[in-house]
Amino acid sequence: MSDPTETYRPGLEGVIATETAVSFLDLDTEQIVIRGYDLIELAREVRYPIVAFLLMHGELPTDAERTAFDERVRRDASLPPGMETVLRSLPPATDAMDALRTGLSALAGFEDPAVLADTSHAANLDKATRILARAPVVAANGYRALRSLDLVEPDPRLGFVANFLHLLPGPRVDETTVAVFDRILTCYSEHELANSTLTARVVASTLADIYGAVVAATASLKGPLHGGANEAAARMFAEIAERGGSSTAESYVLDKLARKERIMGFGHRVYMHRPDPRAVLLGEDLPVLAERRPGGGDLVRSYEICAATMEREKGLYPNTDLPIGLLMYLLEIPIDLYTPVFLCARIAGLVAHVLEQHDDNRLYRPRVLYTGPRDKHP
Amino acid sequence: MSDPTETYRPGLEGVIATETAVSFLDLDTEQIVIRGYDLIELAREVRYPIVAFLLMHGELPTDAERTAFDERVRRDASLPPGMETVLRSLPPATDAMDALRTGLSALAGFEDPAVLADTSHAANLDKATRILARAPVVAANGYRALRSLDLVEPDPRLGFVANFLHLLPGPRVDETTVAVFDRILTCYSEHELANSTLTARVVASTLADIYGAVVAATASLKGPLHGGANEAAARMFAEIAERGGSSTAESYVLDKLARKERIMGFGHRVYMHRPDPRAVLLGEDLPVLAERRPGGGDLVRSYEICAATMEREKGLYPNTDLPIGLLMYLLEIPIDLYTPVFLCARIAGLVAHVLEQHDDNRLYRPRVLYTGPRDKHP
Repeated sequence: MSDPTETYRPGLEGVIATETAVSFLDLDTEQIVIRGYDLIELAREVRYPIVAFLLMHGELPTDAERTAFDERVRRDASLPPGMETVLRSLPPATDAMDALRTGLSALAGFEDPAVLADTSHAANLDKATRILARAPVVAANGYRALRSLDLVEPDPRLGFVANFLHLLPGPRVDETTVAVFDRILTCYSEHELANSTLTARVVASTLADIYGAVVAATASLKGPLHGGANEAAARMFAEIAERGGSSTAESYVLDKLARKERIMGFGHRVYMHRPDPRAVLLGEDLPVLAERRPGGGDLVRSYEICAATMEREKGLYPNTDLPIGLLMYLLEIPIDLYTPVFLCARIAGLVAHVLEQHDDNRLYRPRVLYTGPRDKHP
Repeated sequence: MSDPTETYRPGLEGVIATETAVSFLDLDTEQIVIRGYDLIELAREVRYPIVAFLLMHGELPTDAERTAFDERVRRDASLPPGMETVLRSLPPATDAMDALRTGLSALAGFEDPAVLADTSHAANLDKATRILARAPVVAANGYRALRSLDLVEPDPRLGFVANFLHLLPGPRVDETTVAVFDRILTCYSEHELANSTLTARVVASTLADIYGAVVAATASLKGPLHGGANEAAARMFAEIAERGGSSTAESYVLDKLARKERIMGFGHRVYMHRPDPRAVLLGEDLPVLAERRPGGGDLVRSYEICAATMEREKGLYPNTDLPIGLLMYLLEIPIDLYTPVFLCARIAGLVAHVLEQHDDNRLYRPRVLYTGPRDKHP
């Protein structure tokens, strides 16, 4: 190999960091490939729990497997009773994402230590299913505990997606909201080697357990350059609504661009020379939810104007965070919970990568380009 | 650049993942360069808090800066009162390293939210100093809380290193133990782009806050291929002592090698074609502590026999974990706390890397080599 300093790429841009059979962004077709399937087709055709099963098991479930998986996730959702004490011990100023990070970290202590340390495929899959089932409960009840609200128990009559909505303070649970929220979760379920996924694989490569890898990924997803964009998008639409509504949306965007401020929810580092297929899909749900919240129709008009202005001025298309930010706002989910929802949806992809990493492991240990001084003496 | 798939290196081996002025492993001289200084020279000549200051600030402190830093670290050590509730809420089966991970994660909630989110150099340095001061208290009192022991307050009359020993259940605090423990902490303070350091930089690159980066690094360091080696080394010496002492040490090693079992505490992925300078330095402290624990002399003989056998049979030298494992055992520090001690010592290096990452950021977002199927339909 040539001198590695000649090929140093900040942020590992363009560098291959792993082999994987979990997913792939095809830059030529701009297709998001999930275990061989097109993510958008999955979002249209199957429910989120089936996508989660596909990610974790590598194949779509048979009918019997689907029933067993639904059953298992339902049964595992309830948190160990001690978790309420953990969540209530956090100071009220705690960020909802930090409460989720701390809660998932604490949850590891409720596993049998031998099971926790076991990195075999079977043990990992078992723990992964438990983490998938419980993460929404930790997210929602962490948020509630910080506000001294009563915690909510998962409803054993509801499926995973309806239960997630039921746990969140705010949204109605009906056929339409469940269908939209299901598509949101699928669109967030996996996206190749996003920063949080890289983080999970790097941590797992020390043979740290799957909880540690997921906790570290939660820390990553909190970052404004990663999971925070959906919140920023919602806050932008709320601000436009406050300042005068959709008739001011174009000038809002132009003013931001003139001040060279970053507008979240557009473009992507790796691809998106054309519209993000996830944003196109989810954009179809915006009119459906428009009448669910007062002023919803005007918010959706602002969305369309912002998107058109950014395309005209910067050649940038909405990424998935722009419609999801507005959809979750229309669903009346508290904004602080958008990134926790993203993380809970992404658990399926994260654990799939951890499984793969542990099954054929190589410790991540790259090198540096040293730019500091030499030959100093105390 | 050539086709990146042609240069794919599992575990990013040999790949440059960042520029840094924090530290560098010089493979030609096998020197560990810390901000331009030789780590071994630092360990011999200056105290750990000075090395921590050097890592975090880039230069050795003046006398006035040293006094102010010692004072600041002393003042900041006490945990917010709410932290006792957090630590006591964890289930008793929690691993000590997981308690530290959860405790550091919860600690973020005691920061003012605006200060927590601020990634400026000044705000980061302020938080970094607080994390450095408090991590030993979280580690030691987390361990105590899990065992329903009384928590211990930091002693404002003691310096950082003596205080750390004072907080730990077990060790005596005297001039000799403080000097040895100081060298242990310095040898663990920084080691270029170890997995936990890569993890911290990857997470920080989303502009996640410094607590999140340190929590993720804690998850990484827990892994048996990373921070767990010192515990494994101590358990090996304890096992040899139980089975018959140093006269059986050679056959113990030979039997393990014959069964192709991994022996922790030898060699290193990146370098160590000659003895690890940290292991040589710390090896000098073994005879000093030998009489501190019954059977200590024979444990040190076992150390020497294991090292000689591994060199003869495999050409491998002890790395820093082998003497540190035995030194902490001779200091009567509970084995479960060895990796937490390592993490607390490494905080200085981790936060230095986070500061550098936030000061000149580029999101980590590499690509994958997709090995899965294509063109499937649900």
